[in-house]
Amino acid sequence: MSDARPSSTDLPIALDAMGGERMPDAAVDGALEAVAAGRYVVLVGDRERLEGALRARNASLPIEHAGDVIAMDDHAGDVRRRKDASVVVATRLVKEGRAAAVVSMGHSGATMAAALLVLGRLPGVERPAIVANIPTVDGFCALIDAGANADCRPGWLQQFAVMGSVYARAFLERPDPSVGLMSIGEEEGKGNELAIAVHALLKQTPGVRFHGNVEGRDLLAGTTDVVVTDGFTGNVMLKLAEGEAKVIFELVRGALRSSWRAKLGGLLAKPALRQIAERLDPGTYGAQPLLGVNGYAFIGHGSADARAVRNAVHTASRLVAARVNDHIAEGVAAVAAAQGAAGEAAGSRSAQGADGAA
Amino acid sequence: MSDARPSSTDLPIALDAMGGERMPDAAVDGALEAVAAGRYVVLVGDRERLEGALRARNASLPIEHAGDVIAMDDHAGDVRRRKDASVVVATRLVKEGRAAAVVSMGHSGATMAAALLVLGRLPGVERPAIVANIPTVDGFCALIDAGANADCRPGWLQQFAVMGSVYARAFLERPDPSVGLMSIGEEEGKGNELAIAVHALLKQTPGVRFHGNVEGRDLLAGTTDVVVTDGFTGNVMLKLAEGEAKVIFELVRGALRSSWRAKLGGLLAKPALRQIAERLDPGTYGAQPLLGVNGYAFIGHGSADARAVRNAVHTASRLVAARVNDHIAEGVAAVAAAQGAAGEAAGSRSAQGADGAA
Repeated sequence: MSDARPSSTDLPIALDAMGGERMPDAAVDGALEAVAAGRYVVLVGDRERLEGALRARNASLPIEHAGDVIAMDDHAGDVRRRKDASVVVATRLVKEGRAAAVVSMGHSGATMAAALLVLGRLPGVERPAIVANIPTVDGFCALIDAGANADCRPGWLQQFAVMGSVYARAFLERPDPSVGLMSIGEEEGKGNELAIAVHALLKQTPGVRFHGNVEGRDLLAGTTDVVVTDGFTGNVMLKLAEGEAKVIFELVRGALRSSWRAKLGGLLAKPALRQIAERLDPGTYGAQPLLGVNGYAFIGHGSADARAVRNAVHTASRLVAARVNDHIAEGVAAVAAAQGAAGEAAGSRSAQGADGAA
Repeated sequence: MSDARPSSTDLPIALDAMGGERMPDAAVDGALEAVAAGRYVVLVGDRERLEGALRARNASLPIEHAGDVIAMDDHAGDVRRRKDASVVVATRLVKEGRAAAVVSMGHSGATMAAALLVLGRLPGVERPAIVANIPTVDGFCALIDAGANADCRPGWLQQFAVMGSVYARAFLERPDPSVGLMSIGEEEGKGNELAIAVHALLKQTPGVRFHGNVEGRDLLAGTTDVVVTDGFTGNVMLKLAEGEAKVIFELVRGALRSSWRAKLGGLLAKPALRQIAERLDPGTYGAQPLLGVNGYAFIGHGSADARAVRNAVHTASRLVAARVNDHIAEGVAAVAAAQGAAGEAAGSRSAQGADGAA
């Protein structure tokens, strides 16, 4: 239906094996785990180093050589001229139909820039957006945009709602996901100018079950399956949510060392408490998709370990198999068609009105 | 130095005893606790009900009658015409110099509207802002604006930085508080248009020790003493931070019921864990000041209990005694003077340049 990249599950996931703090070891270990679980992976990076790492593990994986790597303190815009950088080479594999998706744990801005530059946007999509899985009391909530677009127009957030709904259906397995608009009051008129304008749009967006406004506290309460916001607010929320979990568990650990009684209690409660800490760990889901680009691109934490890499490969494979990009292109087209029809109806009504007045 | 309200600590705190979910009981109990600790309080609300509540406690406190109350689902703008509403009457006591501050646990928007309408702004202040105490790993961070201004101009956030610094000096007892600007990347060029413009202003703001950009994770990490942001982002952050603490403690409680071993551990660790939960409880600080109005106004949680009311009265008394409003007016004037001087210098430079060119 569109000129979307081949989404065949026969193609490997192109893994940037150099970008990130623990690379290439975490990439190699994570890829081997994913392959053992039935996934296809091609490592992208310095061939010599990757062959050495594989030899040391007595293992073998396909390698695509890339002689350069974008470091964490480089500029995202560097991807334009550094065509041999691992993230650029990995993204090009997707463009050329040689890989199903690109996954990078390196420089987030560079991964995003490479995806936009090499793959471009899906037809009809105005701005790609990052979706983040936020752990809630009883599952996950999809937060979109988690950081791709710092300043947004209302129509972009309307498309984020469509993309978030497609994602929640495919990945979070919610057949009819609810969508909340992040604001500072539940009533329709509450919020900043952007939220108030988006509220009006979301009330009449086909394919989006709009719940209405939600507030900061609703994110982890799991009030809605999807939460839509601009990339500034979303990124602040994502980092606050992750940071707070870390701080509270630090405080809990400290409290459980504060007395002999607490120490004993902590020892007994440890397995139960560890389960919560794991549920709130970003490594659980591995990487965040950049939705709306014409191909599949995933952005992971710079500190990702082998487990996060393995999970990122699983996440990427699942989104490819679910043909998420085809559904996004369809959803965005349906919204445009409905707005075109509404515009025509309004136009014909006002034409009639003009006739009547004449 | 300004026509600021009398800040004498001899004046009572005007407590809106009707607005809020647990009123008037929580107000009466909280006020009695505060008075027992040496504070002055006047209860504002329905005289008959308040006298009844006091009689039932065999106690006595000054009462100012108010025949009306703004309910939680009323409109904030109602304060314009409902002049007998308890929050309006309480605010008027401050205006008339009969109370040092107004504290309300009722409709936040109405409390803010009453303060703006009745008290007006401090000289030189463009927009009043709410400051919230956020518990961090090792103390508190002052988040400003926590919800008064959904859409902001750069100059407003510059003033929030001045007000937040005055607050942190007086209330959080930091002699030289650091100020972080909430953004989505530490580097100067990172953020939305607003944050980028504010960054440039804060680099040259007298009375503000500017740390640079901070991110969502820095809030609870206590990276800076003050965090400046627009009221939309700030309110989302405040409610997310409170909501997440609640969710995590629910999960912890659930985990400590999941097995006999965990139950026993939980029983032993309970006192230590309760300390953390209390530290993260918004009731600890009672109410948030609306800084920048020409008088002292405090906005509490609708669900406030007696302890929160008592703490709100303490908070109000401390800010009044510290003459925070005088310092804000001075700080804002100093920034205006510095900018005027810089503008004149630039003007004289460009005039010289024009002369040189002529």
